[in-house]
Amino acid sequence: MTEKGMTKQRIKLCVGGFSFTTSTEVLSRFPETKLGKISQSSPYYDRTCDVYSFDRDPNVFSCILNMYRTSELHLPSNICGNAIRRELEFWEIPETQISECCWIIMFQVDQGEEISQDLAANFEKSTNVETESPCGRFRDSLWKCLDQPNYSRIAKIWNTVFMVLVAVSAINYCLETMLEFRVPISGAEINSSVRKNLSGNNLKIELLMFTKVYPSLSAIDLVCLCIFTVEFILHFLSCARKRKFMKRFLTWVDIVTISGGWSVYLTEMGFRNGFVAKNYDMFILYVVLRSFYIFRLFRFLRLSERFTGLKVIFLAINRSKSELILLGICFTIFATVFGSIQYYCEFENNHFDTVPISIWWAVVTMTTVGYGDYVPSGVCGYLVGSTCSLLGILVIPMPIAIIAANFNDFYKRNQQRQQRLKKQMPPPKKMSTIKVNPCLSKLTH
Amino acid sequence: MTEKGMTKQRIKLCVGGFSFTTSTEVLSRFPETKLGKISQSSPYYDRTCDVYSFDRDPNVFSCILNMYRTSELHLPSNICGNAIRRELEFWEIPETQISECCWIIMFQVDQGEEISQDLAANFEKSTNVETESPCGRFRDSLWKCLDQPNYSRIAKIWNTVFMVLVAVSAINYCLETMLEFRVPISGAEINSSVRKNLSGNNLKIELLMFTKVYPSLSAIDLVCLCIFTVEFILHFLSCARKRKFMKRFLTWVDIVTISGGWSVYLTEMGFRNGFVAKNYDMFILYVVLRSFYIFRLFRFLRLSERFTGLKVIFLAINRSKSELILLGICFTIFATVFGSIQYYCEFENNHFDTVPISIWWAVVTMTTVGYGDYVPSGVCGYLVGSTCSLLGILVIPMPIAIIAANFNDFYKRNQQRQQRLKKQMPPPKKMSTIKVNPCLSKLTH
Amino acid sequence: MTEKGMTKQRIKLCVGGFSFTTSTEVLSRFPETKLGKISQSSPYYDRTCDVYSFDRDPNVFSCILNMYRTSELHLPSNICGNAIRRELEFWEIPETQISECCWIIMFQVDQGEEISQDLAANFEKSTNVETESPCGRFRDSLWKCLDQPNYSRIAKIWNTVFMVLVAVSAINYCLETMLEFRVPISGAEINSSVRKNLSGNNLKIELLMFTKVYPSLSAIDLVCLCIFTVEFILHFLSCARKRKFMKRFLTWVDIVTISGGWSVYLTEMGFRNGFVAKNYDMFILYVVLRSFYIFRLFRFLRLSERFTGLKVIFLAINRSKSELILLGICFTIFATVFGSIQYYCEFENNHFDTVPISIWWAVVTMTTVGYGDYVPSGVCGYLVGSTCSLLGILVIPMPIAIIAANFNDFYKRNQQRQQRLKKQMPPPKKMSTIKVNPCLSKLTH
Amino acid sequence: MTEKGMTKQRIKLCVGGFSFTTSTEVLSRFPETKLGKISQSSPYYDRTCDVYSFDRDPNVFSCILNMYRTSELHLPSNICGNAIRRELEFWEIPETQISECCWIIMFQVDQGEEISQDLAANFEKSTNVETESPCGRFRDSLWKCLDQPNYSRIAKIWNTVFMVLVAVSAINYCLETMLEFRVPISGAEINSSVRKNLSGNNLKIELLMFTKVYPSLSAIDLVCLCIFTVEFILHFLSCARKRKFMKRFLTWVDIVTISGGWSVYLTEMGFRNGFVAKNYDMFILYVVLRSFYIFRLFRFLRLSERFTGLKVIFLAINRSKSELILLGICFTIFATVFGSIQYYCEFENNHFDTVPISIWWAVVTMTTVGYGDYVPSGVCGYLVGSTCSLLGILVIPMPIAIIAANFNDFYKRNQQRQQRLKKQMPPPKKMSTIKVNPCLSKLTH
Repeated sequence: MTEKGMTKQRIKLCVGGFSFTTSTEVLSRFPETKLGKISQSSPYYDRTCDVYSFDRDPNVFSCILNMYRTSELHLPSNICGNAIRRELEFWEIPETQISECCWIIMFQVDQGEEISQDLAANFEKSTNVETESPCGRFRDSLWKCLDQPNYSRIAKIWNTVFMVLVAVSAINYCLETMLEFRVPISGAEINSSVRKNLSGNNLKIELLMFTKVYPSLSAIDLVCLCIFTVEFILHFLSCARKRKFMKRFLTWVDIVTISGGWSVYLTEMGFRNGFVAKNYDMFILYVVLRSFYIFRLFRFLRLSERFTGLKVIFLAINRSKSELILLGICFTIFATVFGSIQYYCEFENNHFDTVPISIWWAVVTMTTVGYGDYVPSGVCGYLVGSTCSLLGILVIPMPIAIIAANFNDFYKRNQQRQQRLKKQMPPPKKMSTIKVNPCLSKLTH
Repeated sequence: MTEKGMTKQRIKLCVGGFSFTTSTEVLSRFPETKLGKISQSSPYYDRTCDVYSFDRDPNVFSCILNMYRTSELHLPSNICGNAIRRELEFWEIPETQISECCWIIMFQVDQGEEISQDLAANFEKSTNVETESPCGRFRDSLWKCLDQPNYSRIAKIWNTVFMVLVAVSAINYCLETMLEFRVPISGAEINSSVRKNLSGNNLKIELLMFTKVYPSLSAIDLVCLCIFTVEFILHFLSCARKRKFMKRFLTWVDIVTISGGWSVYLTEMGFRNGFVAKNYDMFILYVVLRSFYIFRLFRFLRLSERFTGLKVIFLAINRSKSELILLGICFTIFATVFGSIQYYCEFENNHFDTVPISIWWAVVTMTTVGYGDYVPSGVCGYLVGSTCSLLGILVIPMPIAIIAANFNDFYKRNQQRQQRLKKQMPPPKKMSTIKVNPCLSKLTH
Repeated sequence: MTEKGMTKQRIKLCVGGFSFTTSTEVLSRFPETKLGKISQSSPYYDRTCDVYSFDRDPNVFSCILNMYRTSELHLPSNICGNAIRRELEFWEIPETQISECCWIIMFQVDQGEEISQDLAANFEKSTNVETESPCGRFRDSLWKCLDQPNYSRIAKIWNTVFMVLVAVSAINYCLETMLEFRVPISGAEINSSVRKNLSGNNLKIELLMFTKVYPSLSAIDLVCLCIFTVEFILHFLSCARKRKFMKRFLTWVDIVTISGGWSVYLTEMGFRNGFVAKNYDMFILYVVLRSFYIFRLFRFLRLSERFTGLKVIFLAINRSKSELILLGICFTIFATVFGSIQYYCEFENNHFDTVPISIWWAVVTMTTVGYGDYVPSGVCGYLVGSTCSLLGILVIPMPIAIIAANFNDFYKRNQQRQQRLKKQMPPPKKMSTIKVNPCLSKLTH
Repeated sequence: MTEKGMTKQRIKLCVGGFSFTTSTEVLSRFPETKLGKISQSSPYYDRTCDVYSFDRDPNVFSCILNMYRTSELHLPSNICGNAIRRELEFWEIPETQISECCWIIMFQVDQGEEISQDLAANFEKSTNVETESPCGRFRDSLWKCLDQPNYSRIAKIWNTVFMVLVAVSAINYCLETMLEFRVPISGAEINSSVRKNLSGNNLKIELLMFTKVYPSLSAIDLVCLCIFTVEFILHFLSCARKRKFMKRFLTWVDIVTISGGWSVYLTEMGFRNGFVAKNYDMFILYVVLRSFYIFRLFRFLRLSERFTGLKVIFLAINRSKSELILLGICFTIFATVFGSIQYYCEFENNHFDTVPISIWWAVVTMTTVGYGDYVPSGVCGYLVGSTCSLLGILVIPMPIAIIAANFNDFYKRNQQRQQRLKKQMPPPKKMSTIKVNPCLSKLTH
C-alpha cells in the first residue's frame, strides 16, 4: 500500500465510527485546516489500529473530505446549516470555503436566525422593576394589568373593555362628520360673519360651523376621553421605567390623542360661547385640532399584543427596508416616465393638462385602480396606457413578492415558535454555553 | 484506548447493523435519556463483542448521536417527521430538545397530520342506521339516494336533475326582476293608493307593484317549489338520525328557502285578490320575504359532494381563522386611517363629505377596484391616494397569501388522498396499533 | 446471541456492500414480502458468512428495513420516487404501504411523469407518409415547408412571411371599422330605403351602409385572402393523412376564415351593385358574415410552433380542468349571492334595477375591474361592496394559484426538456427494456 | 462465492473508505464507462485485499452503482449538482445518462451558475487605464469620483448632490407645466397671429404660448443644466476608454438631455425676442424639443449603482426575454379576440364604435384597470366582459409569475453574493485550476 512512496501515503480516518480512507497528499491541499496539519503525533492518532479517530458527525465529514479531493466544498442541502457550521469550526475550515452554489444553506440559516432573534426581542414581555413594598407590588400588578392583556383575567377583561371603548370612540368619530348625527347650533347667525371669509360654499366647513354633534354622541365621546385620560395617567404612574415608556410609539399616540381631544373639547366650548367663532383663523386651528383625532385610530395597534400577526407584519416590513426603497424608486421612476410620455402623447387632449396630473394617471393605472377620472383618448394614448398597465402588473409585484416572502418567513417562524412554546417547553436545556471545544473529540480515545 | 481513565471510556454502538463509536462522557451529557442511562447491565449490551446493539434506524441515530456530541439536536430535512418522532420516543429524548432551526420539520408534519384529519373527517360518508325490515331497507336506500350523489346510478341521475332544477330556479329568480319577463297587473289602480307612501319614484317598487311575473315563469317556479318541498320531506322522513340532520347548514337553507317560497306565493295570491296591496307595511313584508329567495342559491353548495375542491375551500378558510382576523383588522385599520387622512386632505373638496364615505373610498382604492365615484382632486389627495393604493397592494396580499398557501396544502393533500384511494388501496395494513415498545429492539439479540 | 430462542433469531443482511442486522421476528411482520418469506434455502443466502446478500440500493433498503421495525414506511424526500418504486418492486412491498405523510413523493413523481408525457406527445413532429416517387418527395417537402417552421430555411422564411400577412390582415380588419379609413359610397341614396328598418341611429350600421373601405386597404385584404386560400389548398393537397389534418383546430380556423372572407367579398360586390342593399335581412347576414373575421385572429396560434410557451399554456389549462370547474362554480356562486344581496341592500337605489345587473356589478367588483357604471350608494351597500371585493381577492386567486402552479410545472419541465435536447443527447441508452428481474441480484454470489 | 462461474463474479469496491459489492456482469452493462472497463490490471486494483479502491465521494457513488443495477441513473436531490457533475466526469458517465425525472438537479445548478455569472459581470467595477503621470492619476481619480459612488467619501457626497440635482430638475420639469408656476408673457399679442393655426382652444398650447415659467424656477433649471453640462464634459474628458463610454445607455441619456435642454433654452430665448413665435412650425418643434425633457428622468437609473435591486430588475427582465414575448403574444391575442367579440356583441350599442376602441376596452378589462370609459351594456356584453376579466386574471399572471420567479432567483442570489462579500472573503482559494485528474485517485494506494 505504501509502494508509491511516503508522500502518497494512505490514511485511515474513523469519524464517529465510520471509516474513511484517503491519502496524505490529498489532505495536504489545504494545509491550514485541522486535517491538513495532522500527523502521527496528533492526539487523535491511535497507534494500535493506525487510524485517526474523531468523535464527530460522519455525514458532514463526508462532504468535508470531498473538499480535499476536489478542492470545492459542496454541502448536502438536507443538513441544517448550524450543524454544518459547528463541524466546519471543528475542522478549522473557514466558512467562505463553501462554494457559491451551496452558499444558500448558510444564507438561509443566518436569515432564519435573524428572524428568530427579531421575534424573540419583540415578543419578550416588558418587565417592570419589582419592589418588595405592598405599594410597589400593587403598582407592579397595575402596570401588568394595563400593559399585558394576557397577564391575568382582569387584564384580559380590561383590555377587551378598552378595545370596545376604542372602537366606540372611532365609530363616534366617523359618525360625527355626518349630517344625520348633528343638530343645528342656535347661535348660527353669529358665525355668519366668519362665513364671508369662505369662497364658494364648502359643505364640510358649513357642517362644522352651523351644526354641532348630537348631544348623546357628544357625551359618549367625553366619557371615552375621560377614561382614556385616567388610563394613561395610571399607566404612566405605575410605570417603573418611565424613560423607556416615553420612547414607545403607542405612548405618543395616547398623548397626541388625549391632548388633541381636550383641545377640541375646549375649542368647541368656546364656539358655543360665541367668542371663537368670530375669528376665522381660530376656526382653521379648530379643524386642524380635530384632524388629530385620526391618531386615536392607531390605538387599535394595541391589538398586536393579542393578534401577533399584526406585529409580525410590522416586523416584516421593518426588515424589508431595502425592498421598500426599491419599490419606491421603481414606482416613482415608472410613474414619472409614463406620466410624462402620456402628457405629450395626449398633447391635443385637454384631459392631461399638467405633468403632475399625468403622473397621478400613471399611478392609478399602474396599481390597476383605474378610477377613470383621467383616461387617454387617442391611439397613441391607448398604446401608452396599455404598456403602462402591463408594466405595472409586471414590475410592481416584483419587490412586493420579496416583501411578502419575508412576511411569510416571519409568520411561519412565529407559528413554529408558538407551537413550540405550547408544547410547554422550558427553553431547551440548551447547554449551548458549554462551547464545544476541540478537546471534546479527544475523549473518544 | 482506556488510557484516559474510566470516565472517558470509549463506547461502541451498533444500530441496525451500522457501528458508531463515542465515549461514555459524551453520552452522560443528557443523563435522562436512554443512552445517558445506559450501562453494561443493559439488555442491549452484548458482552461477546463489547457492543450495545439496537435494531433501529441508523440514519436518525446518527443525528441523535450528534446531539450528545454538540448539545444541539439538528435534524436532516429529508427524513419524515413522523419517522423522527418514533425514533426520539425510543431514545427517550423529548421533542422539545430539537433546535429551533430544525423545528420546522415537526411543525410541517404536525400540520400535514391535521390537514389529513380534517379531510378524512369531512369526506367520510354519513352512514344511516341500518335496519333489517324491508321498510327500513327502503328508507335507507332512499336516504342514500337523496344524500350521496355517488351512491348509485339513480342517485347520480337524481342529483343531476336536482342541480338542474336548482339552476332553473336560480335563473328564474334573476329573470323575475326584469321588466321584460313581467306583465302588468290588471287591477293596478287599486295599488295606487299604496303608492302615496312612496317618496319619489322607485323603479323596483313600482315593478313589484304594478307588474307580475310572466305566467309561464311563475308556473316553473311553482313546480320547482313543489319538487323541493317533496324532496325535503322525503329527505327528512328517510333520515334515521334526525338530530344530526337538523344541525346541518344545508337543512336550514332548505327550510328557509321552502318556507320563504310558500310565504311569497301566498302573499302574491293575496296581492292578486287586492286585499294585501292596500297595506304598505304588508308590502314591505312581502319584499323582505322575497329577499329570502337568496338562500336558494346556497343549494348550489350541494355540488361540494361532487366537486371536492369546493369543500376544500371551506375547510381551508375554516382553518385560517386567525389569518382572516388578521386580514380583517389590517383592512379595517388601513381603510379607516387612510379614509380619515383623505377626509382632511381633501377638506376643500366637496367629494369627501363624511368620514364613512372617505373610508369607502379607501376600501375601493386599497382593493384596486377603483370605481371612480369618489376621486381625490388635490395634490395632497393624490399623494394620499397613491400611498393608499400602494400600501393596499403591499399589505392586503400578505395574510391572503398565507390563506392561499393553506388552501394549496389542503388541495394537494386532497389530490394525494384521492390518488391513493384510486390505487384501490385497502387502508394500509397499518399494524400501527402494535405500539412499538422498547422490547422490540431487544429482539435483535 | 440466540439465547432468546429460535423466533428472535438475529439476521444479517448485506445490501450492496452495507451490512444491516435485524431479527427474524421483525421481518416476519410483513409475511407477504420478499424479506418476510426469506429463509436459509433462499438463493440470496450465503452459507459461508451466514449472511443474505442483495445487490440493491442500500439507502432505500435502510427505509424499508425501518418499515419492518416500526410498521410504517416513511421515505426520505431526497430520493427520486422512480428509484424508490423500483426498489419496492424488488422487495415485493406494495406501493400503498407508504405512509400517508410520505405519499407526496410518489404523487409528485407520477405528476412529473404525466407532464413529461403530455409535453412529449404535443411536441412530437407530425410525420408524413414518405413516398419514393419524385412527386411524392416534392409533396412531402412542401408539406414540411408549410407545416413545420423549423424544418428548413425556406420554411422559416415562409412562416415569417405568413405571420406578417396574418398580422397585416388582422390590422386591416381593425382599421376597416374606423371612419378614417372609409370612403362614402356613391350610391348611398339607394340604401336609404333599408335605413327605415333601423330604430334610432346606430353609428356602426350607418358606417357599414353608407361607406366602404378605402380602396387600397380593400386591395391588401383581397391579396391576403388569395394568398391564404392558395396556401390552404397547397397545405391540403400536400397532406398525406387528410383525415388527421381535418381534425385539427387550425384547419377549421382556416376554413371558416377563408370561406367567410370570400362570402363577405361577394356580398360587398352585391352591395355595390345595389341589389343586396335593398334587403334588410341580407344586410344582417352580411354583418354576421363579417363577424367570422374574428377567426382570422386565431391564425396567430400557429406561432405556438415557434414559441412553445404558448402551447404550454394550453396544455396547462387542459390539465387543470377540475380547477377551472371549481373556479367557475366559485365565481358563479359568489357573484350571484353578492349580486342578489346587493339588489336588496340597495333596494331604494335606482342603480341596481335588476338582479342580472347586480350580478354584473358583483363580477366587476370581485375581479377588481371596477368600471364604476354601477356603484352602491348606501351604508349597507358599502358594506356589501367591501365584503364582495375582499372576498373576491381572497377566494378567486385560490383556484387560479393552482392552475398557475400547474403552468409553472409544465413550463419548467419544458425548459428542462429543451435544455436536455440541446445537449444533443441521443435518447439515453436506456436499456430500460431489460426489466430488472429478481435473478439479477442472485448474480452477486 | 465464485461458484456461479467467471461471468457473475463478485466484485468489491472501496470508495472513500466505504465498501460496495456488486458483480462484474452488472458493471459490464455500461461498457464505455470507467467501471465498465475495469479489470484486475487497473491501477485502482489492490491485489492484497482483492478490492478496487477509489478516493471519491461514496454518497454519489452509491447512486452511480444503482445505475449499473437498474439501468437508470436517479440522483438524490440533496447533493449539489456541481458535485455530482465532478463525480460523473470521474466515472466517465455522460450527463445525459441522468433520467428525466432527476434532470432538474442539473438544470437548476446550470441556471444558478448563469445567474451568478450575470451578476458578477454586471457588478464588476469599471476600471480605468492607470497612468503614472500626476495628470493621469488625477484624471483617474476624477473618473472614479464621477463614476463610482462608493469609491470615496467625496464620490459619495458628489453622487448624493447629483441625485438631489436630478430630483430638483425633475420636480422643476413637472411644475413648469402648471399654470400656478407660470407668469404671462408681456408680448402675448404677438403670438396671437400664431393662434389662428389652432383649431379649438387647447389649454396646453395656450399655456406654452401666452405664459412663461416663473423666473426663479427658470433660473434653477438653467443652473442644473450648466452643472450637468460641466459634469458630462468632465466625465467624458476623464474617461480613458472613450469608445466603451459612448456605448453606455446613460451616456446617451446625458447627451440627449443636455442638448435638448440647451435647444429649448435657445428656442425660448427666441420666443422672448418674438421672432420664433410668429412661425407655427417652429412652435411645434419647440414642443417636440421640450418632450426630450423626459430623458432627464432616466438619470435616476444612476441610482442602480447604489441600490443594486434596481439593476437586478433589469437583469431579470433581460433574462426573461422569451417569457416577455410569450406575455406579449398572449396579451395581444386575448385583447384582440375579446375586443372583436365585444365589438359584435355590443353591435347595437354606440359605445364600442370601432374595433381598436373595443381592443382598448379589452386591455383595460384584462389588466383589471377598468377605467369605465367604455362599458358593455347588454347581457351578451356582460358575459363577454366577465369572461374577459376572468381570463385576464387567469392567463396574464402565468408568464408574469415566471418572470417574477426569475427576479426572485436573481435577487436572492444577489443577497447571498453580498452577504458572502461582506464576510470579507478573499475569493475562495479555489485551487480549482488544479483540474482533478484521474491520477488523484490512484494516490490512495
